[in-house]
Amino acid sequence: MAHDKTTVRNIIDKVKAEGRTSLTAPEGKLVCDAYGIPVPQEGVAKSAQEAVRLATQMGFPVVLKIVSPEILHKTEAGGVLVGVKDAGAVEQGFRTIMDNARKYNDKANLVGVQVQQMLQGGQEVIIGSVTDPSFGKLVAFGLGGVLVEVLKDVTFRLAPLTQDEALGMLDSIEARDVLKGVRGQPPVSREALALILTQVGALVSDFPEITELDLNPVFATPTGAIAADVRIVIGEPLPAKYRPSQQEIVRSMNRIMKPDSVAVIGASPEAGKIGNSVMKNLINGGYKGQIYPIHPKADEIMGYKAYRSVKDVPGDIDVAVFAIPAKFVAQALTEVGEKGIPGAVLIPSGFAETGNVEGQQEIQAIGRKYNVRLMGPNIYGFYYTWKNLCATFCTPYDVKGHTALSSQSGGIGMAIIGFSRSAKMGVSAIVGLGNKADLDEDDLLTFFEQDDNTNVVAMHCEDLKDGRSFAEVAKRVSKKKPIVVLKAGRTSLGARAAASHTAALAGNDKIYDDVLRQSGVIRAPGLRDMLEYARAIPLLATPAGENVIIITGAGGSGVLLSDAVADNGLNLMAMPQDLDAAFRKFIPPFGAAGNPVDITGGEPPTTYKNTIRLGLTDPRIHAIILGYWHTIITPPMVFANLVVEVVDEMKAQGIHKPIVASLAGDVQVEEAAEHLFQHGVPAYPYTTEMPVAVLSAKYKWARGAGLL
Amino acid sequence: MAHDKTTVRNIIDKVKAEGRTSLTAPEGKLVCDAYGIPVPQEGVAKSAQEAVRLATQMGFPVVLKIVSPEILHKTEAGGVLVGVKDAGAVEQGFRTIMDNARKYNDKANLVGVQVQQMLQGGQEVIIGSVTDPSFGKLVAFGLGGVLVEVLKDVTFRLAPLTQDEALGMLDSIEARDVLKGVRGQPPVSREALALILTQVGALVSDFPEITELDLNPVFATPTGAIAADVRIVIGEPLPAKYRPSQQEIVRSMNRIMKPDSVAVIGASPEAGKIGNSVMKNLINGGYKGQIYPIHPKADEIMGYKAYRSVKDVPGDIDVAVFAIPAKFVAQALTEVGEKGIPGAVLIPSGFAETGNVEGQQEIQAIGRKYNVRLMGPNIYGFYYTWKNLCATFCTPYDVKGHTALSSQSGGIGMAIIGFSRSAKMGVSAIVGLGNKADLDEDDLLTFFEQDDNTNVVAMHCEDLKDGRSFAEVAKRVSKKKPIVVLKAGRTSLGARAAASHTAALAGNDKIYDDVLRQSGVIRAPGLRDMLEYARAIPLLATPAGENVIIITGAGGSGVLLSDAVADNGLNLMAMPQDLDAAFRKFIPPFGAAGNPVDITGGEPPTTYKNTIRLGLTDPRIHAIILGYWHTIITPPMVFANLVVEVVDEMKAQGIHKPIVASLAGDVQVEEAAEHLFQHGVPAYPYTTEMPVAVLSAKYKWARGAGLL
Repeated sequence: MAHDKTTVRNIIDKVKAEGRTSLTAPEGKLVCDAYGIPVPQEGVAKSAQEAVRLATQMGFPVVLKIVSPEILHKTEAGGVLVGVKDAGAVEQGFRTIMDNARKYNDKANLVGVQVQQMLQGGQEVIIGSVTDPSFGKLVAFGLGGVLVEVLKDVTFRLAPLTQDEALGMLDSIEARDVLKGVRGQPPVSREALALILTQVGALVSDFPEITELDLNPVFATPTGAIAADVRIVIGEPLPAKYRPSQQEIVRSMNRIMKPDSVAVIGASPEAGKIGNSVMKNLINGGYKGQIYPIHPKADEIMGYKAYRSVKDVPGDIDVAVFAIPAKFVAQALTEVGEKGIPGAVLIPSGFAETGNVEGQQEIQAIGRKYNVRLMGPNIYGFYYTWKNLCATFCTPYDVKGHTALSSQSGGIGMAIIGFSRSAKMGVSAIVGLGNKADLDEDDLLTFFEQDDNTNVVAMHCEDLKDGRSFAEVAKRVSKKKPIVVLKAGRTSLGARAAASHTAALAGNDKIYDDVLRQSGVIRAPGLRDMLEYARAIPLLATPAGENVIIITGAGGSGVLLSDAVADNGLNLMAMPQDLDAAFRKFIPPFGAAGNPVDITGGEPPTTYKNTIRLGLTDPRIHAIILGYWHTIITPPMVFANLVVEVVDEMKAQGIHKPIVASLAGDVQVEEAAEHLFQHGVPAYPYTTEMPVAVLSAKYKWARGAGLL
Repeated sequence: MAHDKTTVRNIIDKVKAEGRTSLTAPEGKLVCDAYGIPVPQEGVAKSAQEAVRLATQMGFPVVLKIVSPEILHKTEAGGVLVGVKDAGAVEQGFRTIMDNARKYNDKANLVGVQVQQMLQGGQEVIIGSVTDPSFGKLVAFGLGGVLVEVLKDVTFRLAPLTQDEALGMLDSIEARDVLKGVRGQPPVSREALALILTQVGALVSDFPEITELDLNPVFATPTGAIAADVRIVIGEPLPAKYRPSQQEIVRSMNRIMKPDSVAVIGASPEAGKIGNSVMKNLINGGYKGQIYPIHPKADEIMGYKAYRSVKDVPGDIDVAVFAIPAKFVAQALTEVGEKGIPGAVLIPSGFAETGNVEGQQEIQAIGRKYNVRLMGPNIYGFYYTWKNLCATFCTPYDVKGHTALSSQSGGIGMAIIGFSRSAKMGVSAIVGLGNKADLDEDDLLTFFEQDDNTNVVAMHCEDLKDGRSFAEVAKRVSKKKPIVVLKAGRTSLGARAAASHTAALAGNDKIYDDVLRQSGVIRAPGLRDMLEYARAIPLLATPAGENVIIITGAGGSGVLLSDAVADNGLNLMAMPQDLDAAFRKFIPPFGAAGNPVDITGGEPPTTYKNTIRLGLTDPRIHAIILGYWHTIITPPMVFANLVVEVVDEMKAQGIHKPIVASLAGDVQVEEAAEHLFQHGVPAYPYTTEMPVAVLSAKYKWARGAGLL
């Protein structure tokens, strides 16, 4: 589809030159024409005969409207007639309108009467575009009328968008079935709607000055779609955002996250001081690189030679950790810049979060000037376990693993540390982002993408400074590594609190939701979910297909697990007859047929073993959910051991399937669940929801990454 | 509103006599007239003149339809004209229809032409009634068209219903705002819709043979509502359900649940046997009443004199626990009946759940004959801690408290026991209901209602055999004691598994959802939620109003807690200026204004103390959510102790408000949370969702009980 950019450019320039912020209807129509967006046929008639000719060409009924620069309120002037049905009525209508207009204002310049095709029938939809401070240009789609206005059933995509993405939008609204035809209506043309969506996306991307666009309503029929009304608002394009190249980010981030030398600005021998905690954590954490305490007077701190300034340190420094009051940061940061250190970890608070916006802008400018990337300010610091690096004032964390976590808030960071330690979760990194004066989630993702120690990333954030960059990076990274995001400030109440907390503009949550999904991100509904996903996802094999089965000793668990499967968008496999028969060989005659496979409660370990082995072996089954029921015949640890045994046996044969377990029983199931987890099987006592939720998170990732 | 029952009775009798299962349109109209349900005006014209007269009376446009017993497919016969606009058209239309009908079937008896008021404008809604096997007659309400058909936006109430309940239905659909007027439409008459709803409820209650009723569409306007089309299906009324009086239930249940003497049928000295486990649990659990082992041969079991039959026991027996194979149950149950024992706890499996439906019906009949109430079969038994009674084959449970729990499934029962023990949850009773051959949740509720040791009831169920009774009892009991229900088989997938598990017909989940809410029941979304609600609700004071505040040391927790508040339907109080100022006195100048009260992270214990005390003291605040952030300045146990101290101080002054806490920090927060819980403050580490969810559960109860 060719885009006539020149026409649009001229119109917008004219509107700007005239100091207007919105386009007239004819201008809007011309813009649509230039981008192949269908609008009703229309023309201006200077005589009744011409009106009849135009109307006959476009087909009846038509709308007639006076055209006069002096008459703005056309209806008030008696200058509008709708549903004009035939040639005779058009001829009569032309005269009536001209007479009315003359009577209304006898000095008005009557250009003529606009004859417009009158649309009727078809499904009303709304297509539009908005400009979001974080995500930039977005295209919106919803059904017209009550559904959008009352139920807010609308979906967003980043502009520009492909035809596939546009078609995907049609399936992303709740009332999607309406487009397929209900109550005897035929289905609408999906291609025609997708075309308008892609063209709108192209238009607003080509012309950033278009801050808002509304095609409302668009009439969609089985053969086409026509925008009946066009509204275009122009304004200032968003300022360009600072964004180093991927290569630059990776180069700096590798030095910051995996440093061979660390300077501690504000290092202190005095217990209770942040600069003392940081030193202790570096040393006690077992960091093997160089540590340079920076202190205005001391010659030595905790056994390390101290320097007055980073500039006095003889060798290279990869990262400087700041543990000094806010007011001293700018000066020290300048020295860090002069020394050529690529990263500053700004623990101090006292910047934008306390209203000191200028202070934050000042250090931001210094960072840009010297090309120093800033983490924070107002953070706990960060951990990188594979370097034994605890560049924080919190307690060390030493369980090495492959989950990377970040948080915008310090409190949430502490919850991450506590949960991880309690769950013995293997972690590669934990990072505080705080006020995000510079480093944002997309920078972290760019690092974790190429970090071999990380295979899943979980992030808590309240906003994304550059949502568009995040979406781009996430889309790429999520193809390789699962990304879990807990977006706080989801609700309007939460968003209000976010605004007061970080002075961040919390975006419309529906936009976040759609864009994150579009980027292959797994969105966690709450903090605990994020933590559980982060813990379980790396343990789960990637499923090869959508067929999930439940094998349960407790029928009651089977029902609840089935509920959870449906709630979480997983698919209980329809059990093939031969497979059903194969399972039945192992279970009592009254065990339930189908899926869940109900092995019944009083069964010995062999029954669990045989059925689990069959589930893992049969290639039609892609994932297994176990429901364990504590009995004397198969006690919890016996169950845990047999599961591990069968899973390992299958792994040795090259069979890797995701498997999770729900344990119903007395307190011994807690130990059994822990044993299973430590052997790679996510297992949970007293819940039928969590095992299914983490399996579903893995599925969401696999689907988003195109692996299913 | 007078109900003309005679007319309806006559019509239904006629339909039945003619072997039909549905009413004709004119019959449906007469039924509506008899119950004051407005329908379009209509009449049958035998001449064109009469047609014109009728049409003129009711107003144009009208619909004309042939009336002939021989012509069923009126449209096919050319016998229908819609939108007939004036007298001339009616006259012409009458002739056309009669001519067409004659040509279509020249032998047909042409009675005349029906002239019907043609409705247009207004909002289309659907009002109907269905008969549910568990709940009986229900009235349904939804918006017409796409909203009901595509989005399933519909709500149900038990019939009959009051005007208040009917008005409540209008607010229970998602698209409720449509009725209030959107897009320039005026609001519809709520009274007119409520009237139809109550009349439908009365009609189907008066005539149980009406198994289905549809008024679709009903046109609702600002001044009235008219049912444009009526469809009524008749069939067999539901069979009456066995239901002892409340007094009888209480009498039997008190003896069963709090027995002074227990017979163990199938008691065994042999370890590993169920009859041995039951004996051991009774003895080791510390039960102080009489224990009578029943055994075919033994004279003594585990130090207790054994009997051949319960009939040989000299004194009264309150309850008999069965630990014998299914095939022996009927005989032993007959003896229990002959002995006059009021209750049998049927642990054995091998009944309906394994396909042995006849066996279950047999014992059901024996129970009815002798007035023995049956618990089970296919259960683990039950606990009643205040009698030190463990009538189960599981392990004893001894933490006395005020939460009663029940489960339909044995596996879920084991999860209840494990969680309760792990959480040190005080419990009054844990009951297995299994196949529910007799005792159902409503019997249990009737007992717990008057049981002074119980102040909250949590139930897992897959179906309700008599949902109507449950709703009645729950509506009464929930006014006094909170009832939590985990309804499994919620989803169609879950419902399928339920059917195969307990041979239970899982009801439409939307019906359960609406009726449970209408009955004041708190519905738990999952197993863990049910358990957490059961644990926390009794600790929380009943809120005196809707004003919730968040006091947090972690701004990040404040945002997530705000999200949870909105998600859970709670109301963040709009902070009055004077109260805001009062809080500000205690917190740093950069602490956030409003609600959440963000005291910021580095604050000492006194800041938490002062703000919490203010929150408890100010009468405008009704509930408090705490967000704790682990710091060196206020470590976890210091926080826990100060909270308990302030709460106790306030209690001493007669101030009782619900207060919950979310703890973000390193692993020490787990101990702090436990300490808080043990001192009456529900507190949770690593989650911002659960504390708000349990507070919300308490609010749901208080609202349902009319306390707010």
